[in-house]
Amino acid sequence: MVDILVRGGILVTMDPNRRVIKQGSVAIDGDRIVAVGEEIGEKADKVIDARGKAILPGLINGHTHLAMALLRGYADDMPLDKWLSEKIWPMEKMMRPRDCYVGSLLGSLEMIKSGTTCFADNYFHMDQVARAVKKAGLRGVLSYGMIDRGNRQKMKEEIRIGRSFVKSFQGKAQGRILTMFGPHAPYTCSTECLLKVKELAKRFGVGIHIHVAESREEVKLTVENYGKRPVEYLDSIGFLGPEVLAAHCVWLTEKEIEMLRTKEVKPVHNPASNLKMGSGIAPVPEMLSAGIPVALGTDGAASNNSLDMFKEMKLAALLGKVRKLDPTTMPAMKALEMATINGATALGLSNEIGSVEVGKRADLITVDLKRSHLTPMYDVVSHLVYSANGGDVDTVIVDGKILMEGGKVLTLDEEKVLELAQRTSDDLVSRAGGNK
Amino acid sequence: MVDILVRGGILVTMDPNRRVIKQGSVAIDGDRIVAVGEEIGEKADKVIDARGKAILPGLINGHTHLAMALLRGYADDMPLDKWLSEKIWPMEKMMRPRDCYVGSLLGSLEMIKSGTTCFADNYFHMDQVARAVKKAGLRGVLSYGMIDRGNRQKMKEEIRIGRSFVKSFQGKAQGRILTMFGPHAPYTCSTECLLKVKELAKRFGVGIHIHVAESREEVKLTVENYGKRPVEYLDSIGFLGPEVLAAHCVWLTEKEIEMLRTKEVKPVHNPASNLKMGSGIAPVPEMLSAGIPVALGTDGAASNNSLDMFKEMKLAALLGKVRKLDPTTMPAMKALEMATINGATALGLSNEIGSVEVGKRADLITVDLKRSHLTPMYDVVSHLVYSANGGDVDTVIVDGKILMEGGKVLTLDEEKVLELAQRTSDDLVSRAGGNK
Repeated sequence: MVDILVRGGILVTMDPNRRVIKQGSVAIDGDRIVAVGEEIGEKADKVIDARGKAILPGLINGHTHLAMALLRGYADDMPLDKWLSEKIWPMEKMMRPRDCYVGSLLGSLEMIKSGTTCFADNYFHMDQVARAVKKAGLRGVLSYGMIDRGNRQKMKEEIRIGRSFVKSFQGKAQGRILTMFGPHAPYTCSTECLLKVKELAKRFGVGIHIHVAESREEVKLTVENYGKRPVEYLDSIGFLGPEVLAAHCVWLTEKEIEMLRTKEVKPVHNPASNLKMGSGIAPVPEMLSAGIPVALGTDGAASNNSLDMFKEMKLAALLGKVRKLDPTTMPAMKALEMATINGATALGLSNEIGSVEVGKRADLITVDLKRSHLTPMYDVVSHLVYSANGGDVDTVIVDGKILMEGGKVLTLDEEKVLELAQRTSDDLVSRAGGNK
Repeated sequence: MVDILVRGGILVTMDPNRRVIKQGSVAIDGDRIVAVGEEIGEKADKVIDARGKAILPGLINGHTHLAMALLRGYADDMPLDKWLSEKIWPMEKMMRPRDCYVGSLLGSLEMIKSGTTCFADNYFHMDQVARAVKKAGLRGVLSYGMIDRGNRQKMKEEIRIGRSFVKSFQGKAQGRILTMFGPHAPYTCSTECLLKVKELAKRFGVGIHIHVAESREEVKLTVENYGKRPVEYLDSIGFLGPEVLAAHCVWLTEKEIEMLRTKEVKPVHNPASNLKMGSGIAPVPEMLSAGIPVALGTDGAASNNSLDMFKEMKLAALLGKVRKLDPTTMPAMKALEMATINGATALGLSNEIGSVEVGKRADLITVDLKRSHLTPMYDVVSHLVYSANGGDVDTVIVDGKILMEGGKVLTLDEEKVLELAQRTSDDLVSRAGGNK
C-alpha cells in the first residue's frame, strides 16, 4: 500500500535514458517515488487518473525574484537604468516584509498553476519568501540578495543578513527550503564581499546565487574596473566553482565559456528577460555543446512578465535555433532537460529531483493533453516544449504532497491570494507616490 | 434594444486614439458594433458580464496554413529541406480533402479558444478550409497556394484552381469568407505565373498572399536566378502593390524596406516560425519605423507549433527589443497593434475589423484577468502582450455571433473535434507509411 498512485499517463521520465513510457504510472510513498513503470501492482490510498495526460518531473525555475510578481507590468519597455531608478527601486524601497510575503504568495500560486515545483530565488525579506514557500508547499532554494557597491559597512551588514538567513532557514519546511548566499553581481559587490561569500558558502555547505554577464554595460563596467570581463574577473579572484549558480551569462567569450566549464559553474538561461531588457541572446547552444548543463529561469515577473516555464522552454529552443540559424540546434528535448534535470543539477539536487525515478523525491506534474493545441499526438516532448502552456497543467505534487489537482490549488485560496495581491499592490503604489 | 451588450470590462478599443476605457461596454446589433463607451443605456437581448475581464478586438492571424494543425509536432528540429522532403511533403501528398477539413476544424477550434477571430490562409483543398471556417463561425481570407516551378502546364492548372476558388468563395458565409490569390513564393513560381496572378487579382479585386524573403537560401536562389534579391525582383516585374500580403520578410535590405513602403506592400511577421525554422529575425522595428503597418502571424502549426496569437505578440515585442538591444523598441502597444489593427489593414479590412469602434463588424473577445499571472493590474496592454495566454480568453464574438462564451465553444463540439483529429491523423500516418 502506497500513498499515491499516478496512473496511466504518457510518462516522460527524464531519467538518464530519457525514457518515455506510453502508459506509465508512478507510485509515491511519503515524500519519495517508490515505483515507476508500465504496470505497477501497488495499491494506493489515493489514485490519480492520468489517462490523456503527460506525467513529468516538476519544472525547476533556476532564477527568479518571486516577490516581484507584485510588480508585474508596473513598468515596461524602458531603458534599464531609468526602469530601475525611476520605477523598480522606488517601489522596492517601499516594500515591507508583508509586501514580499504577498508577492511571494502570488508568485507561488502562479508557479503551482504552471507546473513549477522548485525555484531558485534571490531577493530581500527572504524570511517572508520562505514563509510563502512553506505555506504553498513548494520547494525553494532561497538567497538574500546582497549589494555593497564597495561600501565596507554595507558589506558587513549585507553579509550578516545573508548569513543569518542561511543559518536560520537551511533545511526548513521539512527540507523543502534550502539556502544559498546571494551576492547580486560582480559589478555591484566588492571583491572582498565576493571572497567572503565564497568562504562562507564553503563553511555552510551551500551554493552561491549571482547575476553574471547579463548586459553589455556590465561587461564594460567590469572591464573598466578590473581590466577583465565578468567571468574572467570572477575566475581571477578564485570565485568560480561548482556551487556557483550564475544567472544570465549572456555576454561570454569562448574563453569564458571554457572557464565556466572547467570550474563547473552552473549557468541559468533567462531568455524572455534577456530579450525584454534588451540584454541579448545567451550562447546556450555553445555552452551545452561544451558540456555545461545550462538551467532555465524566468527571472522576476517584472522583467518577463511571467513565471511560466513552458513559455521559457519554447523560447529557449527557438532562440538556440536562430542564434545558429539552424533548426537542428536545441531540439525540444534539450529545452525540457534545461527545465528539469539541468535545473536539479544546477541547484545541487540532481540526486533528489529533476526526473521521475525510484528513490527521488516525489516532485511531479501532469499536463492535460486533451486540448486543441496539443492535438494530434505525435511526440509528447514536442508538444510539451512547443505547444503547451502553463495553463495545461492539471496536477502538481511536491515532496509527495498534492498541491494542485484537476487545476484546483489545494494549498492556497486562489481567489483570496488574487484579492490580497491587488490590495497590496494598490497600497504599495500609493505609498510609493506612484501613479498606476 | 440591441442584440448583445458586453458590459463593464477594461475596454482596449485600438481605435485611432488607442483609447482604453477602464469600465467599458460594447453594444452589438446584428453583425455590427453600434455603441462603445463607459455608460451605454442600451437594453439587450443578451448581456455578457465582462467585469474582471478585458474587452478587445478579436486577434487577426495574418499568415497561417490552418489545416497543418493536423501535422502539429509530426516533425521538428530538422533541416528545412529534409523536414519538407522527408516529412511534410509526403504527408501533404496523402492529405485528402477530408483531412484538410478536419485539420481546419482543429485549427479553428484552437483559434477560437485563443481569441483569434480572423486569419489569412494559404494551402490546398481550400474549399474544405472554407467549409470549416463556415462551420466554426470564424472570418477567413483564404487563398489557394500555387507552385509551378517554371512548368507552364502546371502553372495553367494552378491558376485555374486559384481562380476557380476566388470565383466560388469570395464573400461566402455571409461575407465572412474572403479570398486572395496565393502564389507560394518568388522562388517556386515563375515570373509568368506571378504576373498572371497580379492581373487576375486586379480583375477580381482581391489580394495576393505570398511568402517573401523567408530564408537566406531563398535570397541566394533568387539572386542566382534573377540577379536580384526577392523584393528587388518582385519590384522589377511590377508585382508589388498594396494588395500584396507578404509573409515573413526576414531578409531585407534597407532598399527593399523602402520598396515595400513605397509600394504599400503588407508584410506579415511570423516570429516563432522564423526562429523554429532557423530562418532569422525579421527587421520589424525597421519596417514599423518606416511607417509600414506590419501584421503578425503564426504560420502553420507544423512550424510553430501553436496558433496562439498571444504567444506571438510577446515574441514579436521581445525580438524587436533584442534585435536593437534596446528595451524601448517595440513596446507592448506596438505588438497589440500588429495583431489587431495592422492585421486588418494588411487584409484590406481596416474599415471593417481590427478595432472596437461604432460601425465596425462585431469581432471581439474578452480575456479573463482574474488569474495569478495577470495580477496585479497596472497596465492592461502590458498584461495582454507580456503575461496572457490564449487560454485566458473567455468569450469570442465574430460578426455579432457568439462563438465561445465562458471558455465553452458553441459552434464546434470540442471533444468530437479532438477525437476526429486524432483518428484522422492516425489514418493519415498509416497511409503515408510513416511511423509516429
